[in-house]
Amino acid sequence: MISFTTDYGLSDGFVAACHGAIARLAPQVRVLDITHLIPPGDVRRGAVVLAQTVTALPQGVHLAVVDPGVGTARRPIALAAHDGSRFVGPDNGLLVDAAEALGGIATAVHLTNGEWFASEVSATFHGRDIFAPVAARLAGGVPLRDAGPEITDVVRLPMLYVEQIPGRLIAEVQTIDHFGNVQLAARAPLLSTLPATVLVNDTPAVHTTTFGNAPAGALVLLADSAGYAAVAVNGGDAAKSLALAPGDHVTITY
Amino acid sequence: MISFTTDYGLSDGFVAACHGAIARLAPQVRVLDITHLIPPGDVRRGAVVLAQTVTALPQGVHLAVVDPGVGTARRPIALAAHDGSRFVGPDNGLLVDAAEALGGIATAVHLTNGEWFASEVSATFHGRDIFAPVAARLAGGVPLRDAGPEITDVVRLPMLYVEQIPGRLIAEVQTIDHFGNVQLAARAPLLSTLPATVLVNDTPAVHTTTFGNAPAGALVLLADSAGYAAVAVNGGDAAKSLALAPGDHVTITY
Amino acid sequence: MISFTTDYGLSDGFVAACHGAIARLAPQVRVLDITHLIPPGDVRRGAVVLAQTVTALPQGVHLAVVDPGVGTARRPIALAAHDGSRFVGPDNGLLVDAAEALGGIATAVHLTNGEWFASEVSATFHGRDIFAPVAARLAGGVPLRDAGPEITDVVRLPMLYVEQIPGRLIAEVQTIDHFGNVQLAARAPLLSTLPATVLVNDTPAVHTTTFGNAPAGALVLLADSAGYAAVAVNGGDAAKSLALAPGDHVTITY
Repeated sequence: MISFTTDYGLSDGFVAACHGAIARLAPQVRVLDITHLIPPGDVRRGAVVLAQTVTALPQGVHLAVVDPGVGTARRPIALAAHDGSRFVGPDNGLLVDAAEALGGIATAVHLTNGEWFASEVSATFHGRDIFAPVAARLAGGVPLRDAGPEITDVVRLPMLYVEQIPGRLIAEVQTIDHFGNVQLAARAPLLSTLPATVLVNDTPAVHTTTFGNAPAGALVLLADSAGYAAVAVNGGDAAKSLALAPGDHVTITY
Repeated sequence: MISFTTDYGLSDGFVAACHGAIARLAPQVRVLDITHLIPPGDVRRGAVVLAQTVTALPQGVHLAVVDPGVGTARRPIALAAHDGSRFVGPDNGLLVDAAEALGGIATAVHLTNGEWFASEVSATFHGRDIFAPVAARLAGGVPLRDAGPEITDVVRLPMLYVEQIPGRLIAEVQTIDHFGNVQLAARAPLLSTLPATVLVNDTPAVHTTTFGNAPAGALVLLADSAGYAAVAVNGGDAAKSLALAPGDHVTITY
Repeated sequence: MISFTTDYGLSDGFVAACHGAIARLAPQVRVLDITHLIPPGDVRRGAVVLAQTVTALPQGVHLAVVDPGVGTARRPIALAAHDGSRFVGPDNGLLVDAAEALGGIATAVHLTNGEWFASEVSATFHGRDIFAPVAARLAGGVPLRDAGPEITDVVRLPMLYVEQIPGRLIAEVQTIDHFGNVQLAARAPLLSTLPATVLVNDTPAVHTTTFGNAPAGALVLLADSAGYAAVAVNGGDAAKSLALAPGDHVTITY
């Protein structure tokens, strides 16, 4: 199985061209699309979605392309995680959190073996011409070490901000989902000692397990299904209600 | 085959996580996505799309999750229809119309057998942790009765409004599609005796078989491909032209 | 393999109903979605996306439905290209460019064999009732000539405008992608003699190979991955920056 995550959108033929490149080299491999609606060039968002989804998938190759530096000196890479999963994409931090969610990086290589690429490599569509063909070959069982030389200086994204002081938990917004639920960078266990009512940026919120336990429209603080602290509104959109965006800091007072 | 319908959107990894949960338990089963763009929490819209699509699919298991009550006392259920199809989702009316489109409900069970669920069940993502695993097991051939006790009080959505009096057909808007075509709750045969020109909410409309039979921009009344009366604009968006939304009442005068 | 391109959108069950129609007739055939977000009725956009994607796909049957004339006298057709690929859709120009990208049209037939269609054909959903069943039969190996009589007057879209005079290249906007990159109707080799700095509609632009080679926010003129001249903004949306839409004329001065 190959999972596939990009910022290519769904209105062009870019995703299908990559599926086609895989199908030509490895017709029997199943491709499972994670999402192609990562905002253009938003490497952090791609990294977060990938890391929180791969743990639910069968072991395989995870192909991800959010690549504002395509065609420049940024390296194309592949990683092997300690659980046996492989990752293929640009060296800009996109793949690292997901590899760590699957046991950590065991090996990283710089993709330099041009025999694995398309016969002509365009300057702007490495998904089709480099990354998809490499993923297809790895899914077909070719060893990672044949893809290029090992590297140890893989690019990582900066850590997000989380601080806990008596009576207060301050955390950066990690991501916002389709429902407007606001996921914080704080891990869910940090909520375990918090009382049933708190303030989220000065707005009263119910600390409970699911939206439906709160009155309609009420602000809810909960441990989300990916294991992070999250702020939601029962039947509503917390990001809009609180005017929050990724990178903002949220203060929970209790 | 498992069909899959949700309000999860396409920008997160939620749909893929459910595909992954199925692939782990039943790797050979094909999953056919119906849509994941049901508006958040819109159970009626989910029920309508599901009921009007399953009749075109091969027999199988239909997994649907539009579940504003996730994590509360609302029951997770599975249904068997008289044609042999099975349905899995929350007990909020989402599945019933589709089961009736396939012969009616033969059996309904409350999903209580925790051995069929993920080893840890989150409070907010029953699609991944309960419904997808149950669908995978049913697709793999495990009998429905092993999933939990039979129930007879399945939740149903209220009937939509349709009234026919001499010279007038009044019907609630059932749903609006991507093109802005307005589907009424009235079945298509109710149109059979109507003349070639009618008024739709006081606007003249051509009663014909397809948009292209009317002048560009003209309002058209037709029997749609799902067997309902519908209002369309040739080359345009009828819902916008008439400012109609689901639940509105439309009066056809003739 | 069947590829599948439409303007059906992703929020209804229309795409899934076509997948279902194929799965019923040819359960072993894989369907690869190209896009279903062609703007409603935009035959040109459908033709461009299809033609630029099929070259990356394995040989197969390409099903495409952007069909504002559904249910009228416009013919349903199938084409065979010289490379062995087949195309199924309405006779409105949608399929021709793609067939030419695969070697040109070898045979064209008018789909008249009703035994290949659904048992009941609706007036407004030929994707489900005519085109998908025909694609499934062709993918299953039935010869094209059994689908209907050969025709030689297939409808073609008008040529787009391209003019090169000393110091100036003028070209119509062919299409705009998800990132806002503006693809011109001019083939990439027309750029080969242009200098490293040019004017695009009076705005200075860098003529280079990829966005990332230019400063953030800079306008870039490049040969895109489909082999056309294109205008992009590094980290931005060129169509918005230059207020361009398909059909507009762009003047490159050098």
